Amino acid sequence: MSGPFPSPGGKAELEEGGVFTPRFDADGLIGCITLDAADGAVLMFAHMNAEALRLTLETGIAHYWSRSRQSLWRKGDTSGQQQTVVEIRTDCDQDVLLMKVVPGGDGGACHTGRRSCFYRKVALGAGATKLTFDAPDAGKV
Amino acid sequence: MSGPFPSPGGKAELEEGGVFTPRFDADGLIGCITLDAADGAVLMFAHMNAEALRLTLETGIAHYWSRSRQSLWRKGDTSGQQQTVVEIRTDCDQDVLLMKVVPGGDGGACHTGRRSCFYRKVALGAGATKLTFDAPDAGKV
Repeated sequence: MSGPFPSPGGKAELEEGGVFTPRFDADGLIGCITLDAADGAVLMFAHMNAEALRLTLETGIAHYWSRSRQSLWRKGDTSGQQQTVVEIRTDCDQDVLLMKVVPGGDGGACHTGRRSCFYRKVALGAGATKLTFDAPDAGKV
Repeated sequence: MSGPFPSPGGKAELEEGGVFTPRFDADGLIGCITLDAADGAVLMFAHMNAEALRLTLETGIAHYWSRSRQSLWRKGDTSGQQQTVVEIRTDCDQDVLLMKVVPGGDGGACHTGRRSCFYRKVALGAGATKLTFDAPDAGKV
């Protein structure tokens, strides 16, 4: 499921090689952590298939694969929160992406209206299951 | 596959609820983005199963599930890079975690000896497959 990308090699090539050989999972997807280029804040986490990744690299506009809708998803087409790509990195074994973007529209990324999808803290400690929301104006750039 | 955690509810509970109901995937795993609490740098991305997440919450020390070794993995047991948890967040649909840690040992997280697993940039543009390494001293805190 590498699509237009070279096939992954062994451990040495993956970790120390200079060729991008993204490792898609059994569903043909690779995870992508998306940061706001302005301040490095983590905005969202989503998946790309080979086509979404190819389009992202070619156009400089973030494309993802929506697992819930099972369709290619150019972020911002309905929300206005189009993401202009500034940088993409991959990790040691090339199975995750880290992407810095300039978000359009209101500068947010979450479909709930918040800037970041990570707007709740998990309580620490044994047996805790409480989530605490950020203040409504938290995370403004 | 929720283990000791409450079962996920519908969209409203997932997104706007105050109860942590992590959504593990078909393999019983949830992805975790790990940041250095000192500066917010993205150090690594790994997975947790319910047991690793429970132990992380109870002990305040990061535990993961190693997919390659198929075993529970308390980060740092062999590398010294133990991670003390400062904060854990979850995203809108509760299927990813964002964790801030204080890394022990040399302050790094990548098994290649680098601070972050994301030490290579992907070339942008149509058909590009080049990776560019950060300078060896990049990313020091």
